[in-house]
Amino acid sequence: MEFLMKPIGLIHSPFTEKSDVPIQASRSQARGTVEIFSEFAEGLQDVEDFSHIFLLYAFHESSGFSLLVKPFLDDQLHGLFSTRYPYRPNPIGFSVVRLLGRRNHLLDIEGVDVLDGTPLLDIKPFVPEFDMRTETRSGWYDSRKE
Amino acid sequence: MEFLMKPIGLIHSPFTEKSDVPIQASRSQARGTVEIFSEFAEGLQDVEDFSHIFLLYAFHESSGFSLLVKPFLDDQLHGLFSTRYPYRPNPIGFSVVRLLGRRNHLLDIEGVDVLDGTPLLDIKPFVPEFDMRTETRSGWYDSRKE
Repeated sequence: MEFLMKPIGLIHSPFTEKSDVPIQASRSQARGTVEIFSEFAEGLQDVEDFSHIFLLYAFHESSGFSLLVKPFLDDQLHGLFSTRYPYRPNPIGFSVVRLLGRRNHLLDIEGVDVLDGTPLLDIKPFVPEFDMRTETRSGWYDSRKE
Repeated sequence: MEFLMKPIGLIHSPFTEKSDVPIQASRSQARGTVEIFSEFAEGLQDVEDFSHIFLLYAFHESSGFSLLVKPFLDDQLHGLFSTRYPYRPNPIGFSVVRLLGRRNHLLDIEGVDVLDGTPLLDIKPFVPEFDMRTETRSGWYDSRKE
């Protein structure tokens, strides 16, 4: 079973080098623009009424993967699936960003943490009732040395 | 540009019919099991230290899409990208589930909201610092008639 994914748009950001990209959207205040290809633009209706959206995208510059990795925020090896490391069997990433506004097929966003030109696969609205959890425990991330 | 995605495992749930599937993981207390194919099992190391994980999966029973849809939780048409509707240009879904424990390549989970046999594309740890947002606004979802 295989699934062929094609971009529905592009994410424009200030980051042209991997070393410049913030480690997580929540740590970024950088602004960017999401460009939706015109054939999908009608699907943006009402999205401007949400303060935050998920961007799902391809890690297009990350090919290959290891099952044990040192994440950017720790110096110990961890299983890949306990990290957000970008080199993954299916190189899909997502970020929650603040939606500043919509101009037709363009979305102005804040908190971008991806390379300029990243291929966009999907947009979903952030809905606290669906997406927030309290009383959580975050393994190595909680106990790492900062 | 195209990206070929292949499952890394399967999600087992009590739901064999679409009409039985809960509308969101946050509204489900159903238990299920995530089975990771053996060649990826090493990547699960340390995941058991997280209380919640994101499952990214393919909506394998949803082909085709419309750009304007009536979501399950409203009776008005909205742009597809302002909804979580499963019929999408790239049929990728994600859910936050509670991780009850790991048995080698099997993860026992609570709060499953997908069809039995759903192809798993990725697992990422839920990290509140990355994934939570306060002071949000949720458009049609906030203002719909319940």
